Amino acid sequence: MATIADIGLAAAINILSAFVFFLIFAVLRLQPFNDRVYFPKWYLRGLRSSPMSSGVVGKFVNLDYRSYLRFLGWMPAALKMPEPELIEHAGLDSAVYLRIYLIGLKIFVPITFLAFTILVPVNWTNDTLEHSKMLFSSIDKLSISNIPHESHRFWAHLVMAYAFTFWTCYVLLKEYETVASMRLQFLALERRRPDQFTVLVRNVPPDPDESVSELVEHFFMVNHPDHYITHQVVYNANDLAKVVREKKKAQNWLDYNQLKYQRKPLKRPIRKTGCLGLWGKKVDSIEYYASEVERLSKEEVAEREKIVKSTKYIMPAAFVSFRTRWAAAVCAQTQQTRNPTLWLTEWAPEPRDVYWRNLAIPFVSLTIRRLIVAVAFFFLTFFFVIPIVFVQSLANIEGIEKALPFLRPIIEIKFIKSFIQGFLPGIALKIFLILLPTILMLMSKFEGLVSISSLERRSASKYYLFLLVNVFLGSIITGTAFEQLNTFIHQSANQIPVTIGQSIPMKATFFITYIMVDGWAGIAGEILRLKPLIIYHLKNVFLVKTEKDREEAMYPGSIGFDTSEPQIQLYFLLGLVYAVVTPFLLPFILIFFGLAYVVYRHQIINVYDQRYESGATFWPDVHGRIISALIISQLLLMGLLSTKQASQSTPLLVALPVLTIWFHKYCKSRYEPAFVRFPLQEAMMKDTLEHAREPDLDLKSYVSDAYMHPVFKGGYNDDEENAPPTGYGKVHGSPALVPTKRQSRRSTPVPSKHSGSLSPPSVRASSQGPR
Amino acid sequence: MATIADIGLAAAINILSAFVFFLIFAVLRLQPFNDRVYFPKWYLRGLRSSPMSSGVVGKFVNLDYRSYLRFLGWMPAALKMPEPELIEHAGLDSAVYLRIYLIGLKIFVPITFLAFTILVPVNWTNDTLEHSKMLFSSIDKLSISNIPHESHRFWAHLVMAYAFTFWTCYVLLKEYETVASMRLQFLALERRRPDQFTVLVRNVPPDPDESVSELVEHFFMVNHPDHYITHQVVYNANDLAKVVREKKKAQNWLDYNQLKYQRKPLKRPIRKTGCLGLWGKKVDSIEYYASEVERLSKEEVAEREKIVKSTKYIMPAAFVSFRTRWAAAVCAQTQQTRNPTLWLTEWAPEPRDVYWRNLAIPFVSLTIRRLIVAVAFFFLTFFFVIPIVFVQSLANIEGIEKALPFLRPIIEIKFIKSFIQGFLPGIALKIFLILLPTILMLMSKFEGLVSISSLERRSASKYYLFLLVNVFLGSIITGTAFEQLNTFIHQSANQIPVTIGQSIPMKATFFITYIMVDGWAGIAGEILRLKPLIIYHLKNVFLVKTEKDREEAMYPGSIGFDTSEPQIQLYFLLGLVYAVVTPFLLPFILIFFGLAYVVYRHQIINVYDQRYESGATFWPDVHGRIISALIISQLLLMGLLSTKQASQSTPLLVALPVLTIWFHKYCKSRYEPAFVRFPLQEAMMKDTLEHAREPDLDLKSYVSDAYMHPVFKGGYNDDEENAPPTGYGKVHGSPALVPTKRQSRRSTPVPSKHSGSLSPPSVRASSQGPR
Repeated sequence: MATIADIGLAAAINILSAFVFFLIFAVLRLQPFNDRVYFPKWYLRGLRSSPMSSGVVGKFVNLDYRSYLRFLGWMPAALKMPEPELIEHAGLDSAVYLRIYLIGLKIFVPITFLAFTILVPVNWTNDTLEHSKMLFSSIDKLSISNIPHESHRFWAHLVMAYAFTFWTCYVLLKEYETVASMRLQFLALERRRPDQFTVLVRNVPPDPDESVSELVEHFFMVNHPDHYITHQVVYNANDLAKVVREKKKAQNWLDYNQLKYQRKPLKRPIRKTGCLGLWGKKVDSIEYYASEVERLSKEEVAEREKIVKSTKYIMPAAFVSFRTRWAAAVCAQTQQTRNPTLWLTEWAPEPRDVYWRNLAIPFVSLTIRRLIVAVAFFFLTFFFVIPIVFVQSLANIEGIEKALPFLRPIIEIKFIKSFIQGFLPGIALKIFLILLPTILMLMSKFEGLVSISSLERRSASKYYLFLLVNVFLGSIITGTAFEQLNTFIHQSANQIPVTIGQSIPMKATFFITYIMVDGWAGIAGEILRLKPLIIYHLKNVFLVKTEKDREEAMYPGSIGFDTSEPQIQLYFLLGLVYAVVTPFLLPFILIFFGLAYVVYRHQIINVYDQRYESGATFWPDVHGRIISALIISQLLLMGLLSTKQASQSTPLLVALPVLTIWFHKYCKSRYEPAFVRFPLQEAMMKDTLEHAREPDLDLKSYVSDAYMHPVFKGGYNDDEENAPPTGYGKVHGSPALVPTKRQSRRSTPVPSKHSGSLSPPSVRASSQGPR
Repeated sequence: MATIADIGLAAAINILSAFVFFLIFAVLRLQPFNDRVYFPKWYLRGLRSSPMSSGVVGKFVNLDYRSYLRFLGWMPAALKMPEPELIEHAGLDSAVYLRIYLIGLKIFVPITFLAFTILVPVNWTNDTLEHSKMLFSSIDKLSISNIPHESHRFWAHLVMAYAFTFWTCYVLLKEYETVASMRLQFLALERRRPDQFTVLVRNVPPDPDESVSELVEHFFMVNHPDHYITHQVVYNANDLAKVVREKKKAQNWLDYNQLKYQRKPLKRPIRKTGCLGLWGKKVDSIEYYASEVERLSKEEVAEREKIVKSTKYIMPAAFVSFRTRWAAAVCAQTQQTRNPTLWLTEWAPEPRDVYWRNLAIPFVSLTIRRLIVAVAFFFLTFFFVIPIVFVQSLANIEGIEKALPFLRPIIEIKFIKSFIQGFLPGIALKIFLILLPTILMLMSKFEGLVSISSLERRSASKYYLFLLVNVFLGSIITGTAFEQLNTFIHQSANQIPVTIGQSIPMKATFFITYIMVDGWAGIAGEILRLKPLIIYHLKNVFLVKTEKDREEAMYPGSIGFDTSEPQIQLYFLLGLVYAVVTPFLLPFILIFFGLAYVVYRHQIINVYDQRYESGATFWPDVHGRIISALIISQLLLMGLLSTKQASQSTPLLVALPVLTIWFHKYCKSRYEPAFVRFPLQEAMMKDTLEHAREPDLDLKSYVSDAYMHPVFKGGYNDDEENAPPTGYGKVHGSPALVPTKRQSRRSTPVPSKHSGSLSPPSVRASSQGPR
């Protein structure tokens, strides 16, 4: 059993290692040749084009010793940028994402304070554990375990449970209000964007006499007569996209070989034509890839023509644009025809946000797909261990030796053998866990959602459920999820919280370690960006020829809401569950949230570049998951207290989940519409303003090709996480560069100590001044 | 234990008694002086003004013996009216309501057939029960109890469970489709009605500078500029309505006393002024009530003025009318402002359907009210026995003797004493059950729904839950609902279906008796209309002076969806649960549905007059409840089979509820929008047609006072179930009388045998011919 001293030591080690990470980061990020890895966002924004430094050596290594002294200087710098500027700089999604960490601090700082001033003394001044002759650690002395059965002291826990619930709900309410108004303000202040005028229509019914395009035009001409202006049909360009991808790959290889040849002009690069270049005839690589690129180019042209000419590539979906935002809002929110499964309208996602492949899935198939995914996800969550165990049983040393006899000499080396034997059982599980987010994303894609943002939100829900079952419950009730399921099915409904609740205090040490190893270390690792660092330098050496290539190589991608948010939610869950039971865990949660907030703020300012802007549509999910964590914590507390024979106070806890559910319902009806629908008043206001400002705006040409499949625009990166989205420059950057203001760029490494004044001139578009 | 012969005898007795009821009905309805009780609808429609007969005696008693011979003639007559005519005659609500019985027949006729040809032989050809030395009845020989443990014959039950589920779902799907298209066609063919152009706006925010009326006008002028025409604010006229009600009551007493005086001119009627006329000074009744009426008339005038003049009677709600149906559909389906709790818009219910009292409840209060009602309903369902037991313990003979000592001599009579002793314990429960629908309706009203139709739907859901818990589960698991709850909480989740499933076969006899006594007898009683018959004749003797009074006295009211539909659903539940377990119960269900269909068809054609027309909005509820019955039946079957150690087949049943839930979701997304939203295409079509037909229609004056509080229109009957709705004649009857066609009027008692040709001339409005 770990004592407080043990935990303290572990914490010290962890903090120290995090410190080392920060130190390495401080050194790495100051090196000019890493500049594009640690500050890609400023390059993408066009605010920086090269690391400022002088001399040949200075181009690669930062020799200014003073900049090393301020090696933690990025932390205050990250905190300095005010929120409105952050929204302008990184978008509302990122700014609101940071608020998740902030809400963690807001909830847990007062809770920690209260718990330590009230609950810890109440728990500490007992001697139940000392009398019980059980093994116990000093942490348990601080926890609810130290209270004797039937004690009146449980009233303190009861009151605290109420206080914590009310405080959490209060913070959630305020935050929902803030985020909702931030979203509405963001939408109101947004520049003109094609998606404001556009509605996505799906399930256009087949018509024997008219093409999809004609049908759409006629339908909206008739049913929205004063408002319709134009539409764009959706093409099934998946084949073309495939060709384009292949061509790009071949082009990459061509570039690589050409560069290689340039550097060593004596030896022309050679490859084999067979699978993976391992077998077959040897050919000249440059010629081979050049001919490949040419062949694929021709194929691409043919495919393009085919799509344009044949009607069978036209999918029964279209992006319909209207004269006003009001009309688009109306069309998106209303039902068009008798049959509610035809002419389905919804707000068009941003052009960047569209997930093109799913646009033509028919309605019946959608419900079937949802059923299949639900069943598959159930099995994945509860039975994922089975295939892994199966793989493990295959992947033993004897099996490998039999399958690949030529490896035998290597394997038989004792060191390697023991390494494999120790490592192999875990590796299948590890690989599975690494692949899990991808698997969940594939499931969500199979469900047929049409925007990347909704795909990420759906995956996040799935991932959270998985973590809840397999990490949280799985750690408390040891045993596989399947065994748990079996236990729970055979237990009475009110016995389940008791079973879990009982083991909660015992697992506090484990979760503290988990928070340190997974949480703290994860964040410290996040800031180092080791993987992108390596990949960037590899690409830089082997592929990069032009500035555009370099931009692609350094492209940092989005935050990945689908993987990171559920992990944060796990900490909310832990914090809320242990707040009453073992308050000693709370400071660890606090450190996690604090650290994560600073690190992610830095990353969002300097690194990540969101692929899309959904206007914080994910907030209702975040809110809902915190509420569910709250309810879980209440149920578990009820279960725990009922084993303590605190029969006077336990029944009073029943009201808590009821009130929390009611609170959730209230919030849902009060704020959620702001994230789903677009109010007509706002639309009308923007329309009126715009009409007054630009009475003769040619909206038709403005929206006319906004929703063209990206493959037709040249460049195509659908599905590639770490590549800049298509049309990136056009939609994102074209109106005006967003300037940075005040001092936040101080954190970028400039050689002078008067960094504020010597920073590169910011590109200020005068029309985009502070509002 | 009841044998099949016993049950057969009971069935024969019940059928015979139903027959006697029909016989009495046949005699009563042929008497001209009962004509208005049994055929009020024809009078209300204006198609009949007096029973046709000649002579003084013939005015009261039907002397034509031939008409008595065809005493069951109303049955085929009721079935003859084709559905389109029925819809025109009684409205879509009634026509679709009848389809609930029809769907019962559609589901259970093939199921009964299959069960008797396959399951009964499979069950019968065992001898488990004979060997088991248990008491058993011959019904059990036909049931699943007769199959030995671990038998392979359970495969038959499994396959049948699948077959029944698929058949039920198929029928439900088809029916949903039919009802949805009936609804849309009904809406499409409807005449112009104010609610098509009108939207109810609630939660108009307070404004310091503008009145509600101005605010509404400005808001919609700005945000729906081309479409808004007019609006009507809602007044809080609850006080006025109270005065009007009191005045009406006084007027009734005045009429009664005047009539009494007319008949016995020698003695002026006298009453006492105190409470209930039992104490106080004696006064002349006619003078007293005349002065009362006068006083209340003055009060009414004052109240009216107060409402019109003071702004504090104006509620933050309004009925806003638009130029086109399209615009109303748009406004009803969209969100108006940032704050989704302000300017809430929804389709205006029909003027007749509005529940005026609830129009001004603010949003926050709504959610709190819902929480309170949910908690209250939970306690009502599970703990309703407690106050009843309490009342019973008070209401014993000794208690009565103590409280009312002057009753002692009467009570001490042996016969009366034993009667009270036998009767008293049950009476509190009986009174509660009679009051239950009213209590549930009050709860729904407290929740703040604004239309009578939605109130009835909400009450129906509550009533169904109550029946499910207290009648279905309560009969299976004997003991109070609270004891059940306690049992279930302490049982494991998968043990609950087992516990219930096990006792299911044993309760078959009980439920067969229940179906006969409650179902069959209830229907036979329904057609007799004893209570309205007595009340009508009483009113006719004591109150009726004018034709209008008589019309009010005979007013039959609506069907009462909130009480009758949940009871039907109970039979669906019983049928589906017992279909696989004890098929012997099915014919009883069939007879119930068949009989009920005929009787209610007759009643709908001749008696009931719906207060409002909601266009079958209740269908999703009906569908959902049948689905839930199906899922309950599947879970119970799983529980039952698991006790039979049919371990091969039971796991295969798990897929059934999953598939059923998925089917429900599919239906919900596919058909439910048709019941909630109004498609723009339909609206546009109707608008265009109307515009072409009547290019210079003055819509503003058409809608201008449609949504005036009924109390301002004179006559006020809000809340009184058995009084004609306000504005009845105006809205309902004004456009044109709906004529009857073909032969359905044959069922009305006419003296001649050539009933078809000699029936009163039907009022045919030429413009309203068959479509």
